[in-house]
Amino acid sequence: MPNPYTTKLNTATGKVDLSHGGGGRAMAQLIDELFIKHFDNDLLRQHNDQALFTVPAGRLVISTDGHVISPLFFPGGDIGSLAVHGTVNDVAMSGAKPLYLAAGFILEEGFPLADLEKIVISMAAAAKRAGTPVVTGDTKVVERGKGDGVFITTTGVGIVSEGVNISGNLAQPGCAILVSGSIGDHGVAIMAGRENLQFDTTIVSDSAALNSLVADMVAAAPADIRCLRDPTRGGLATALNELAQQSGVGMVIDETQVPIKSEVKAACEILGLDPLYVANEGKLVCICNAAAAESLLAVMRKHPLGLDAAIIGEVIADEHGFVQMTTAFGGRRIVDWPVGEQLPRIC
Amino acid sequence: MPNPYTTKLNTATGKVDLSHGGGGRAMAQLIDELFIKHFDNDLLRQHNDQALFTVPAGRLVISTDGHVISPLFFPGGDIGSLAVHGTVNDVAMSGAKPLYLAAGFILEEGFPLADLEKIVISMAAAAKRAGTPVVTGDTKVVERGKGDGVFITTTGVGIVSEGVNISGNLAQPGCAILVSGSIGDHGVAIMAGRENLQFDTTIVSDSAALNSLVADMVAAAPADIRCLRDPTRGGLATALNELAQQSGVGMVIDETQVPIKSEVKAACEILGLDPLYVANEGKLVCICNAAAAESLLAVMRKHPLGLDAAIIGEVIADEHGFVQMTTAFGGRRIVDWPVGEQLPRIC
Repeated sequence: MPNPYTTKLNTATGKVDLSHGGGGRAMAQLIDELFIKHFDNDLLRQHNDQALFTVPAGRLVISTDGHVISPLFFPGGDIGSLAVHGTVNDVAMSGAKPLYLAAGFILEEGFPLADLEKIVISMAAAAKRAGTPVVTGDTKVVERGKGDGVFITTTGVGIVSEGVNISGNLAQPGCAILVSGSIGDHGVAIMAGRENLQFDTTIVSDSAALNSLVADMVAAAPADIRCLRDPTRGGLATALNELAQQSGVGMVIDETQVPIKSEVKAACEILGLDPLYVANEGKLVCICNAAAAESLLAVMRKHPLGLDAAIIGEVIADEHGFVQMTTAFGGRRIVDWPVGEQLPRIC
Repeated sequence: MPNPYTTKLNTATGKVDLSHGGGGRAMAQLIDELFIKHFDNDLLRQHNDQALFTVPAGRLVISTDGHVISPLFFPGGDIGSLAVHGTVNDVAMSGAKPLYLAAGFILEEGFPLADLEKIVISMAAAAKRAGTPVVTGDTKVVERGKGDGVFITTTGVGIVSEGVNISGNLAQPGCAILVSGSIGDHGVAIMAGRENLQFDTTIVSDSAALNSLVADMVAAAPADIRCLRDPTRGGLATALNELAQQSGVGMVIDETQVPIKSEVKAACEILGLDPLYVANEGKLVCICNAAAAESLLAVMRKHPLGLDAAIIGEVIADEHGFVQMTTAFGGRRIVDWPVGEQLPRIC
């Protein structure tokens, strides 16, 4: 077919306008010259409103996540890579192998096409690294002042291998609680950026796709992993409280075992944040049978995203579902779940 | 588990605040007492960040659509039912049977919880009618002035039966072009609402899930249907141009055969709109082998959503991919595709 566009999309100085969401030629051009160009796969190139692929019989997982992070660009990532990692991780937390992503963009009129292209390039690179191509999508445009640059909702599908049964309701007293690395990096990186704080070392978001770490863990101990959860909004404290409530158990964690980088700890003190409640975007909590904890820890530490993994506590019987923490001073306190979030629009 | 919320969610006079997107207790309450309450299914009740279900081996389809319609409530529907129909239809346009939906909400701080509940109730009812439960979701909240009430991105998955091969690139010269009913209803209903226009009869959106109509069509002529597309943004003209471009063919439609309600035609004249370019949300275009057109038309007309189905034209060879229309006056004109959209935020 002849190229129906008379001029190339102006990704240098052009801006999103309402016609880019109108379903006509302007939108088709945006899709061709920006989205398909960078996401670059056969399913997208079919120009259908859906993507079709073949799956084996078995258990499929679907997860969706809206991304509204502010600012759009931050140390260690941007909304594009985050939108891939966030959904890949939610799929992987069922023990699944994520396969494909769908992406829905809500753009604000006037948003620079150059920024949109940077985001899409970053998103495409993240999708490639994770092995999860963006195979279908949608673009809407809202008037200036009715959005905030760009929101990206990604949805992922994945398949779960036989014998793997991971769910938030399967924690049992006696199980070990592991975390894959240091907590609080993402939230502090965003907050420092917003507040324009300068530290000696730039704190970088941990935003990363955890599917290959999960694959190693599942391969090593398929029947011993009971729960996986990525402690995003609300941080480690919220993830543990969710799991405790779902499973109807209590937990005790040991403050001295929870990995936190010294610069993150220092920044949290300055910002008045409790790192237990600060968002992560490249960490996971794992609850497993106690007998398998040490060997699983060794597997995690061999993976680049699990170098600082640690066993941080254990599941106990508790009809109230409390999460408790033995403090560095030897006391014990309740780690309650927060009402809201210390930081809005962290993901 | 004991209910962790001290007071019930105030869906009478309460408003969305930033804590509802924070990942903590306020968000958990919103999910429990509003989303899970109305969407009401076991997968959601698991409180995992993803939904797991079993599929047979075969071809799976995924499609995603953001919904930013303004106003949120309109004659014939609201953003909730629309968000179900839009995605169910995109999945169905591959000939698939839609199975499940995921829903991502982006809420604006200050949005009335009463309106959110109305939308969720409507969405749940639409999902139930379509047989496609909302099995997983996500909620984000943005500050006042950074969104517009509520945006909903839905993603659907479905399965395609063996022997069904429907795609926008399969139209061939000689094929017949069918439409399932009168065009322009949705866009005119929205526009009349926005402009506060009063007509003798209220024009109602055609917003509807087309999967049962598609199922009847696919069952009747599995090997004869080549393309299906729902003519949403940009209307019938845009859908035909997309298909012509994808397939590398031309088309000729007959103006006198395109069903348009007289009140929609009259409203279009007042509003200065060409109904060929006005959005539909419960109609489909079908391109099929000519020999099967009459029998397929009969099948469509037996379905409540296909009563006014018509054969409107045929596919021709044309290397330029033009869509032409024989007018009521006997002439012929090019039905070009629009640059943008006559109406922003129509879906």
